[in-house]
Order: sequence, then structure tokens, then C-alpha cells
Amino acid sequence: MSAEPVVQHLREQHDAVFERLNAFLRLPSVSTDPAYAQGMADTRAFLVDWLKRIGLNDVQLLDGGGQPAVYGAWLGAPGAPTIIVYGHYDVQPPDPLALWKTPPFEPTVRDGRLYARGASDVKGSTTIAIETVAAFLAVQGRCPVNIKLFIEGEEETGSPSLHEIVRRYGDLLKADAMISADGGRASPTVPTINVGARGLTKLELVVRTAAKELHSGRYGGSVRNALHELAAIVASLHDSEGAIAIPALMDAVAPLGERDRRDTAALPFDEVAFVADVGGIAAGEPGFTIRERLTLRPAIDVNGMWGGYTGAGSKTVIPDEARAKITIRLAPGQDPEQVAQALKDHILAAARPGVAVRFETIGGGSPASTLAADHPLVQAATSVLQATSGQEPVHVRLGATVPITAIFKEMLDLDTLMFGFNLPDEDVHAPNEFFHIPSIALGLRAWPLLLQELAQFPPSAFRQDGR
Amino acid sequence: MSAEPVVQHLREQHDAVFERLNAFLRLPSVSTDPAYAQGMADTRAFLVDWLKRIGLNDVQLLDGGGQPAVYGAWLGAPGAPTIIVYGHYDVQPPDPLALWKTPPFEPTVRDGRLYARGASDVKGSTTIAIETVAAFLAVQGRCPVNIKLFIEGEEETGSPSLHEIVRRYGDLLKADAMISADGGRASPTVPTINVGARGLTKLELVVRTAAKELHSGRYGGSVRNALHELAAIVASLHDSEGAIAIPALMDAVAPLGERDRRDTAALPFDEVAFVADVGGIAAGEPGFTIRERLTLRPAIDVNGMWGGYTGAGSKTVIPDEARAKITIRLAPGQDPEQVAQALKDHILAAARPGVAVRFETIGGGSPASTLAADHPLVQAATSVLQATSGQEPVHVRLGATVPITAIFKEMLDLDTLMFGFNLPDEDVHAPNEFFHIPSIALGLRAWPLLLQELAQFPPSAFRQDGR
Repeated sequence: MSAEPVVQHLREQHDAVFERLNAFLRLPSVSTDPAYAQGMADTRAFLVDWLKRIGLNDVQLLDGGGQPAVYGAWLGAPGAPTIIVYGHYDVQPPDPLALWKTPPFEPTVRDGRLYARGASDVKGSTTIAIETVAAFLAVQGRCPVNIKLFIEGEEETGSPSLHEIVRRYGDLLKADAMISADGGRASPTVPTINVGARGLTKLELVVRTAAKELHSGRYGGSVRNALHELAAIVASLHDSEGAIAIPALMDAVAPLGERDRRDTAALPFDEVAFVADVGGIAAGEPGFTIRERLTLRPAIDVNGMWGGYTGAGSKTVIPDEARAKITIRLAPGQDPEQVAQALKDHILAAARPGVAVRFETIGGGSPASTLAADHPLVQAATSVLQATSGQEPVHVRLGATVPITAIFKEMLDLDTLMFGFNLPDEDVHAPNEFFHIPSIALGLRAWPLLLQELAQFPPSAFRQDGR
Repeated sequence: MSAEPVVQHLREQHDAVFERLNAFLRLPSVSTDPAYAQGMADTRAFLVDWLKRIGLNDVQLLDGGGQPAVYGAWLGAPGAPTIIVYGHYDVQPPDPLALWKTPPFEPTVRDGRLYARGASDVKGSTTIAIETVAAFLAVQGRCPVNIKLFIEGEEETGSPSLHEIVRRYGDLLKADAMISADGGRASPTVPTINVGARGLTKLELVVRTAAKELHSGRYGGSVRNALHELAAIVASLHDSEGAIAIPALMDAVAPLGERDRRDTAALPFDEVAFVADVGGIAAGEPGFTIRERLTLRPAIDVNGMWGGYTGAGSKTVIPDEARAKITIRLAPGQDPEQVAQALKDHILAAARPGVAVRFETIGGGSPASTLAADHPLVQAATSVLQATSGQEPVHVRLGATVPITAIFKEMLDLDTLMFGFNLPDEDVHAPNEFFHIPSIALGLRAWPLLLQELAQFPPSAFRQDGR
């Protein structure tokens, strides 16, 4: 069977798809902040209803003790591969709210862009995936492959209960491969296939220098100040060029191979424009291109840091406590726990005598992932992108982290193809996040072709170890 | 005339005085935060009413464009000195509110202490001053000296409009000397006379590294992070011992003389206990005792620092902006503007190429003040403290800053005796601020004797330059 009638159907349904995406975006599904618990629950109810309406079976919440995932299946293609289709319904917090031109949960069209929190990351591409399955069932009454839709609710918080979900529902989630709606395109003009992603781990740090906040007139010049001490610790993480200054943390990083260098160089990438477009200041590890650093080298970023008086006016205090939230992007070869431990050891060694350092979160997350170049997922994606773009797709890696790929590989031996349609300029995790509206039509064409293409491989071909 | 009947009257009135102090403390007069504008206005109305009721004349608000001061006078002693009695009605913000055992604006007695924001700094001592004048007028129908009560409303914000108030009301404020209810006792057992204070200046710093917040997966390892850059700047302000690492800022600091060293050493002071009592970590400039550092050497403290995501959970961003509020305690010899400029120059030099640094507040404040040892104010205080304690008072300097003393010296050529009764352990500027209740009775005895003593000097004797 050809996927063309399905593609045609989706073309005709574009406005209705767009409306459903907007309804999805109106739901404030911020997973990290308990204040949004109702928005999370509403979004799950919305998805359950949606998956049932398009004809999926066994629709249910998969609860691992955190934010449940939403699941639905169509398993009517015996002998064909079984594909988990992954997306996530949770989004980043919208703050700072004052910087949004239009409210984050009121999707708004401006200049061919759909502005809303989660539009790019990743409700847009998740909607493309759901609508593709819906169209196959509506037009042909069947899908070319068996489908298990898995829409996660904790991607933005590092998937804390995903291990437990997969443990509890391992039988339900058995499959031959996964396609992820997360992990987008690297370029608007060159077709790319994501063959890997950096990993992520984290650490939250509390520095204490006294039992209470002190008056700077009465103690200034005689005691340590928690902000000075935190600053000294943070300043010690990188050298003046911006490279990580913790040798133990770099030990296990895999050296770049020839193929890595060649693939990275194959993507048209204007380093100067990349930095200038966001008004940034280029910095980082010498000896690597920016794309190499972004995808194949680790990075430490302090995501938040605070202490003392931050209100209006001034307050002459010596703060007794200061905090920093730190995340580390992991390169291939690095183990999240080992890296977090190396960072912790460095911080403890950097703290001056007497300074109390406590770690509120440490470790977790996931290692970097890599998909072999001759994997059926890559072959199928190559065919689809050749057909839709007329160009040879370039292999790229993501700098961002999708913990799901590592967890599903580890626990269910599934490889993942990232096939999202978001683009790098869409201000994810920042105010005024948007989704390029033409990406919806592109995705709705490519996804049906991909499912059709995957049907040509026997289920056993999808396991890298077994080939 | 003897002050003894006045002292006796105040002893009998102790409970009524205590009630009036409590009413004063219930008014939330936080000057730095516009949210407390009504509390400030209510406090001014309360003071105007109080000063009128005790029999002061010409009671009025002195408005310099900021928080007005409250003024009232009794000028019925021709030929006697005219003394400005200074206090302030504004208090520090009460946050962090969660750490208060009882609400900051509900004065509460526990263990001989009166807990409330402003109890120590400085509504307690301001009340002693007002009640002393009230008692003279009630008992004798007159005061031994001419009195001009001046209750400021901006002490906790560095007195931004005090210059303008003194400029506008210079004629009204003409006097021979000032006694300040601010600037307390250095020890509960040894009588002390404050003969000076450190100055204060400040700077608020904004570091920018990009046009917007960036996703750490997409940019991590390729660009500067505002928090890393702010940390590097803050870490450069001090050396590892905690001494200021900015030579240009130390240039004008007056070297310690023999008298300075001797006076400082004369006060019983347990350096280890001083730091241990607040769970602190001793640090600072080598070659000086802690008290020398606290009173005769400058100190830089970052009072607040923040940037990026500070909410619950994690957010994988590279912050584009970070901020720090910095204040500098000034030693004798230092000029506030020159010091702020030296700090600014250092920060600009420390910022890495491309990092944008903006200063939102810079300079202002006041230099350190010093009162000569043979000044009539010191002689009068010496007599009073000898009489009330039976001990020889020790000369001390304050580490904290009272801008009023510098401004009145500069603009009206008035010297100031600090004669507050607060003690160093009273958690000023911090949660659970309190005032030792026995200090009220001590103050109500010493203040009448002091006014009586000052009446013995001719007005011309109070000008240091003219003696």
C-alpha cells in the first residue's frame, strides 16, 4: 500500500490539525512546578480523549510514581515491526513571564510562526506524530507498522520516573524500535538525520558560611560571605577560555573519530552567525569547531544562582547561604554518575576551609546516545528525506538531551530515530518559544512515508546488537 | 538644675514608655520597598502626633523629595547650646519572613528581649531620646539645652534625599552639635563612646552575555554564560584570605595610628567568640585584629546576587543576565565616589572580552566620620558614663555607617555624638531583631544626664575647627 492517500488526507486536514495543536498548546503542562499540577492533569485527560477518538486501543496512563505517561496502541499488523512513537506533553516553565510578547499558553500566530510555550518543544512535533497515526487509521483503517504511542510527562525534568514506568509496563512497551517526535531538524535547508544526543546530569549546590544573615557594617571584613564563596567555586569550573577546568570530569570523554569530524563538518553551519544571532559571546574548549563542542564534547552550565537580598533598593547584609543549579551535558563515553561525582569532588576541593557545601540533587539523568549509521531506522529516514527533499541527508548529533532514548535502549534494547520537525532558532526553554508553521506540513508528509518505509524491514533487523 | 527629678520621672514612666515603643514598632516603616509606602506614611503621622503631644514646637515634615524626615523643636534656652537629636523611623525589610519566630511588626517579649523589626535599629534608642525630651518638658517645663528633634526616614537606604533636606531646611537645622540615637554600645559591660563610623558606598552591577536566555543543550559549550561571568568578576574582588584584591581601592585608606591600635585593643573583644557566635568563618585582611578590620579598614560585600532559573526543579538554560548588589564599607581617608569608581574600573577590567557590564547604581553614600577625643561631646559623654557605670569609658568606632553624621558635618559643620543603647548581638538587618529591654532603663538614665552636661559648654565650644 502507498502512503500517498494518507499524505493527501493530511494535506486536506491541515487546518483541523492546526486547531488541535492549538488546543494542546493552551494546556499549561509545566512538569517541574507543582503549581501547574492541574494543567498537567488536564493535558493527560486531553490526550487520553484524543488517542481514543483516533482509534487507538488500550489507551491508559502509565504511572511510575511521578507524572504519568499517556499510552495508546494499534497492533493490527502481525509480522510487521512494532514501533514506539515517542513524544512528550510537558513543557518548560514559562518564566520570566514579563518577556513574553503574548501569553505563553495562548498560542498566537505572527509572521508564519506559532508562538506558545511547548510549540517547538515538543507539542508541535508530537501532534504531527499523533495526526499521522490518526490519518492512517482514518484513510486505510490500518497502519503499515504496529504502533505504540508513548507521550511522556517528565521530559523537561529529566524523566525521574521513566525508569519505573518502563519497569512496571515493560511488557506493554515491548517493541522493535522507537521514533521520537523530540529531537528536531538541524537546518531549515539541509535534510538531517539525528544519530545521537548528548547526555545530561545535574547537581544543586548550597553554600553556607554562617548560621544567619549578618549585618555588613558589623561583620564586613571579618567573615566569609556565602556569595563570594559560591562565586569562587563557580569561577573554578571553567578556565578563562570557557573550557571545563576539571580534568577528572573529562577522563572518559571519547576522542573524536574521523567520521565524527566529517559528519559534523558536512552540515552547513555559520559559527559566527550562530553566536551573533543570539547576541552571544563565543567561548569554549579550544581545538574543536562549535558544532563539535555542541554535540561531541561535554558542557557545564550554571542554570541558576542566587543568594542574599534581591529586592528593590539595597540591603547591607552578608548572606549566609547561596545556591546554584548546575547541569552538565555529557559527551559519548561519559557516565552520568561518574561525572556528577567528579563535579562534586571538584566543588568540595574548591570550597575554602570552613565553608559548608551541601548537594541537594546530584547525579541521575542519562548518558549520550548514538545510533549506528547503517541501522534500519537511519536507512528508512534516509529514503524518506531523499524523497521529500531531493537531497542526501546529513548525519548530525544533538547537543540537547533526550533521556528517553538512553532509558529505552538500556531497559528494552530499543534504538531510537529522532524525527522531530522543530528548528534550532525556535527559542525553546526561553520566552517567546515558537514553531515555524510550514514545519507542520513538512512533518505531515514525512511521517507517513517513514512509517511506510519501516514496514519493509523485518522486526529483527532493528536490533543493532543482533544484526 | 539637676536632671535627677527627670531621671526619677522616667523611671516611674517605664511601662508607659514601653507601650509607646511598642506602638512605634507595630508600624511597618520599610523605606527601601515601595510596597510599604502606607506604613511609612502612618509612621510619620504617628511621630508628628507624638512630638506635638510632648510639647515640641514647629512640628513638621521636612521633605527632600524622598521619604520626609520628621522635625520638632524646643528652643526656650537662650545662650545654651542647640542640639539636634537624631533618630530614624525607617527599618530594614523584614524578609526572609519565614525565619521570624514571631511576626516582625508584632513586638513580642521573650527572655528580657523585645523582638521586632527596628527594635534595635533604631526605634528603641529613638524612643529613649524622644522620651527624655518629653520628661524634661513634663517635669521642669524646659530642657537644659535647645532641642531640635530630627527623625529621618531614609537611613536604611543610604539617606538619598538627606542632602536635599538639609539644603532646603538649612536655617531650621542650624545647631551647635548633634546627638544621635543611632550607633549603639559596643559591649554590655564596658561603657563606650562612639567616636567614629565607617562610611558606605555602593554599586549595582548587571552582566549580560547574550540577547536572550539560551537552551543549554543547543548552546552549552559554545558561548559565555552570564552566571559564570558574574562569578568570575565577584571572585576577583577578594584574594583567597578574604582581603580586598583591588589596589586602587586601598590607596587612600589612612594607616592605623598608635591611638587607633590602643583604643581598639582597649575594648574587651573575643575574636573567636565573635565569629563563632554567628557560626561564621573568620576571614579578611592579614595584619589587623578583627576589630581593627571592622572599624578602620574597608570591606566589600556582595549583598545579593542572582540570575537564571531559581524556581523549583531544574531548567536547562544558559542565563543571559546576572546581577549583583555590592556595598563597600569605607575606612577613614576614603572618598565614596573615588572608591566606587575604583571598584567599577576593576570590574570592567575583570570582565572578559565581549561581556557587557552595566552599573545601575554607583557611588553616593558617605565617607567615614571621626570625632576628636577632646571634643565637648566626648567630654560630656565621658562624665555621664563615668557617673552611671563607675567605669572609664573606652573609645570605639563603629563598623556600620550612619550617613547623617557625615552629611551634617559637611553641610552644617555639626559634630555628632552617637549615644544609642542598642548592643551588637541584636540581629539588626536580620530575622528576629530584638532590643535588650534593660537597655531602655539605662538609656532613660543616661540621656537626661547628657543633656544636662552639654548645657555647661558654651555653644562655640562644639565646633572642632574653631576651638
